[in-house]
Amino acid sequence: MNNLAAIREEISKELHTHIVPFWEKHTNDPVHGGHFSCLGCDGAVFDTDKFAWMQGRGIWMFAKLVNEYGDKFGKREQWLSLAKSAVDFVRKHGYADNGDIYFAFKRDGTPLIHPYNIYSDCFMATAYAEYAKAAACDWSREEALRLYKRIQERAARPKGEWTKSTGERSFMAMGFQMIQMTMARDMADVLPPSVVEPVVDKSLDIFWKLHVKRDKKRVFERVQPDGSLNLEVMEGRLLNPGHALETLWMVMDVANERGESRMVADCAEAMLWTIDHGWDKEYGGIYYYQDYLGHPTEQLQHFMKLWWVHAEALCAFLLAYKLTGSQVHYDWFVRIWDYCAKHFSDREYGEWFGYLDREGRPSSTQKGGKWKGFFHLPRALMLCEGWMQSM
Amino acid sequence: MNNLAAIREEISKELHTHIVPFWEKHTNDPVHGGHFSCLGCDGAVFDTDKFAWMQGRGIWMFAKLVNEYGDKFGKREQWLSLAKSAVDFVRKHGYADNGDIYFAFKRDGTPLIHPYNIYSDCFMATAYAEYAKAAACDWSREEALRLYKRIQERAARPKGEWTKSTGERSFMAMGFQMIQMTMARDMADVLPPSVVEPVVDKSLDIFWKLHVKRDKKRVFERVQPDGSLNLEVMEGRLLNPGHALETLWMVMDVANERGESRMVADCAEAMLWTIDHGWDKEYGGIYYYQDYLGHPTEQLQHFMKLWWVHAEALCAFLLAYKLTGSQVHYDWFVRIWDYCAKHFSDREYGEWFGYLDREGRPSSTQKGGKWKGFFHLPRALMLCEGWMQSM
Repeated sequence: MNNLAAIREEISKELHTHIVPFWEKHTNDPVHGGHFSCLGCDGAVFDTDKFAWMQGRGIWMFAKLVNEYGDKFGKREQWLSLAKSAVDFVRKHGYADNGDIYFAFKRDGTPLIHPYNIYSDCFMATAYAEYAKAAACDWSREEALRLYKRIQERAARPKGEWTKSTGERSFMAMGFQMIQMTMARDMADVLPPSVVEPVVDKSLDIFWKLHVKRDKKRVFERVQPDGSLNLEVMEGRLLNPGHALETLWMVMDVANERGESRMVADCAEAMLWTIDHGWDKEYGGIYYYQDYLGHPTEQLQHFMKLWWVHAEALCAFLLAYKLTGSQVHYDWFVRIWDYCAKHFSDREYGEWFGYLDREGRPSSTQKGGKWKGFFHLPRALMLCEGWMQSM
Repeated sequence: MNNLAAIREEISKELHTHIVPFWEKHTNDPVHGGHFSCLGCDGAVFDTDKFAWMQGRGIWMFAKLVNEYGDKFGKREQWLSLAKSAVDFVRKHGYADNGDIYFAFKRDGTPLIHPYNIYSDCFMATAYAEYAKAAACDWSREEALRLYKRIQERAARPKGEWTKSTGERSFMAMGFQMIQMTMARDMADVLPPSVVEPVVDKSLDIFWKLHVKRDKKRVFERVQPDGSLNLEVMEGRLLNPGHALETLWMVMDVANERGESRMVADCAEAMLWTIDHGWDKEYGGIYYYQDYLGHPTEQLQHFMKLWWVHAEALCAFLLAYKLTGSQVHYDWFVRIWDYCAKHFSDREYGEWFGYLDREGRPSSTQKGGKWKGFFHLPRALMLCEGWMQSM
């Protein structure tokens, strides 16, 4: 399938018929509130624990549906109610004494894992901001701001007392700076432009000066603070094509907003390096991890094909095509969509399988888990649907 | 191949021609001392970082070769020197201010990761004890004792300040108690029997009362302190067939030493439950992780086939055959050996591939890594060789 109108229809159908209803039906806990995320092939809960990342991402996504579609599908109240369920759960159970957010909970809200992971707070901050808009909730708006400020206090040492590193190797990791950018932009209704713009400027600067290596045609996850590479160790050689593509479409989106067409073109070029090297020429699909020099990666699952990698890749190549008209980007978009439709999508029970083996077969039946919730896939399909409407 | 004498010859050849020489040649750092463990297919170092687990396990294994074979192969001095290289490295660089052992180091010994992981200290304690015997080194003996005592002080909270758990879910994990047993037995030349025997008694008691579920025919990794199961969550359903088989042969070995033939038979029976359920009926090999109820596991790599799992399985089924004469255990030993010879062994460059995909193909070229060193495989082959000599 390579007709844009036909793919647009497919994507809308996937989103509104096969993805959103799956989570509407299965994620909410009717007893204790909050969202289950460990969902089997048919949506049955296979682990009753709850995870702060997944509460935050689910709240954000349901609130985003409200803010994007309003009551177009007659689901505004349902979506608000689903978002509120997790807001109330985190409000009631989520906080350690110092106001940071626990990582994991039992079904009834008993905290299981300390706030060692600042991403819980990042996802909750953006969730509260989006929910504040959807539900016109002042408390949620104020809490989003409080969390945002607290995250900035913690930014120099995001894992706090749980930091295992001695600090003797000071890699800059692409992830945390990029979430700073995404969080600031996502919270633009809550934060003043005088806060948002400098964060975006700094993030773009770090991305282009440190992580993008034009001579090597790669985006590196970890670089030394002066921008040099450490290729002696696995950490320094790590490539994560899905994360590179996700970052590239976000940077491209900013560049487009700012009218920086040269930066849009640079993003489009870096996407091609990434997919040319990251695509599995034998079995199709995009690798999870790669080593720049072709050595083994630390991650045993490097060869697997993950749903979020492909969802972010769809965003990258569609946006690049939309903004530059490049046929090669369009062809990649079609190829990736075809792969997803064939391998990830499950039109019997809905949602996508999360994890495929190298050959593209589901390696487990799960549709959601500790790290897979209602986020990457619906966000990607919603964005693609929107971008295609104006094409 | 199913002739015992032929397999014995194969195993000896594998150990002395293809495994030990690989590490003799490639693991030592001639510049800074200590052992590299990240070794590619041909033995080339692909990451220069050093890991305390791998120093400890390498020291233990080289010292064990000295204590087991003496100068039978004309390598006594070489093995002592290789062990000493890592002893000196850890002695010089390994210690945090409080005397606990760092987890990871740069090549030159600069500490990278704090002592968040008590297994570093466990492997170093047994390493020092084995080295003390091989090299008649009093310092090493004293340091083994000091570390052992310190480990007991830390045992109630092994991860110390790096503990992420709130303590609200108190699973008993099989691993830590079992390493207490192994460590105590391995250090029997250093520790008095009045210390060793109660640890072994307690470990056996916990194993049989809590982790072995006869009605379910499974060995569970994590149980609640009263022995009940929590099957609502992935953590509580986790099965690790390789770890179960490793523990079962160690318990069987103790039972045999103590003349407890009923316990030997119980171990043999539990081995059969484990392999019947853990063996991949479609592609062969033993799964890495399984969920008791067949749900997805948290670990994406659950379906992979790992070298150490199969090395420990060889020990289990050979020892069971030796002690009980059971043909079904012998048949499993032969089947596992054939699988290993066909899929893991690399007679071109030596050593075994560490990580196979479900179909049994190496998923990377690595022979060693952050978690794979000179330990499980040579220990297993050395034990099998020894057991077969008296059969």
